[in-house]
Amino acid sequence: MTGQPEIRIQLPPWMQAFLEAAPRTFGDDTQAMDMAIALARENTRQGTGGPFGALVLESASGRLLAAGVNLVVTANCSLAHAEMVALASAQQQLGHFDLAQVVPGGCTLVSSAEPCAMCMGALPWSGASRLVCGARDQDVRSVGFDEGDKPADWVDAYRRRGITVTRDCLRGPALEVLRDYAASGGIIY
Amino acid sequence: MTGQPEIRIQLPPWMQAFLEAAPRTFGDDTQAMDMAIALARENTRQGTGGPFGALVLESASGRLLAAGVNLVVTANCSLAHAEMVALASAQQQLGHFDLAQVVPGGCTLVSSAEPCAMCMGALPWSGASRLVCGARDQDVRSVGFDEGDKPADWVDAYRRRGITVTRDCLRGPALEVLRDYAASGGIIY
Repeated sequence: MTGQPEIRIQLPPWMQAFLEAAPRTFGDDTQAMDMAIALARENTRQGTGGPFGALVLESASGRLLAAGVNLVVTANCSLAHAEMVALASAQQQLGHFDLAQVVPGGCTLVSSAEPCAMCMGALPWSGASRLVCGARDQDVRSVGFDEGDKPADWVDAYRRRGITVTRDCLRGPALEVLRDYAASGGIIY
Repeated sequence: MTGQPEIRIQLPPWMQAFLEAAPRTFGDDTQAMDMAIALARENTRQGTGGPFGALVLESASGRLLAAGVNLVVTANCSLAHAEMVALASAQQQLGHFDLAQVVPGGCTLVSSAEPCAMCMGALPWSGASRLVCGARDQDVRSVGFDEGDKPADWVDAYRRRGITVTRDCLRGPALEVLRDYAASGGIIY
């Protein structure tokens, strides 16, 4: 063991065409969330992962910088949550580990569901300064996913770091994707 | 943007030879931590990242499954903490996102420093069932690194999940690597 020279998380083949057919810039949070939810749904439909999608946008313009879906099972990697994939993809495309240093005005992470404990811890390190969530923590747990152990006051903790949070953006449709996945017998992990 | 088909985190070229010269099996926590600290020190000496090292071991035998160092700057990826690199490397080498399902008796994550909020959230998803830490949270903060916002009772929260925690393993030498890095003017992020 220990012989593998790199870690690789490949985005699913369908994603490129899916993104090319979608808007490159989003006028508001609802439009962006609609896209994050569409990615979550397509990911389950294609059988490439769990019902979660995320986008990284340039906050000032609404321009799409990167997208992610949950690839835990297909990438053999428990780190490959949609938010992590989107953040890492944005960073590697921009060539910097800190989005705040390369995107004037900052970045927004749009996630079809409230981030789990890992993704919540990851966001401040990414340099994103805004989070928009669809489904709530309890929605994710209600279909059987584990969200982990988060600080009780995470929204306040983010605010103290200068990260703003918008919740319940298209919460209903976001929850629907989770419920449809669970009802179809999708793997819960 | 959004054109990159994969996320890649390359392990530094020196690491292969370093691991080949080191034990493949560790008789106890102290021996394993000595190796994690050596990786942290070599990573700073080689200029490939921050002063953090981690190992994933098969708990029953002490056999090394994977190693990681902090590659945030060199990989252009804020997710590439030592613990994350070690866990993802173990999973991808073993071909499964859940180490508990492919390693009888479970895995141990040995980290030269207490995991930050992100890595702490990541460990339960990895399937590792034991954590051994060197430097404490306050040691990491004392040299200027941010550890993030963790649940106050994270050790108890882990215990409730069946994950055991051993702290202060070679804490002094682990802290020394952090101090040496800070004193040499290394990037703090």
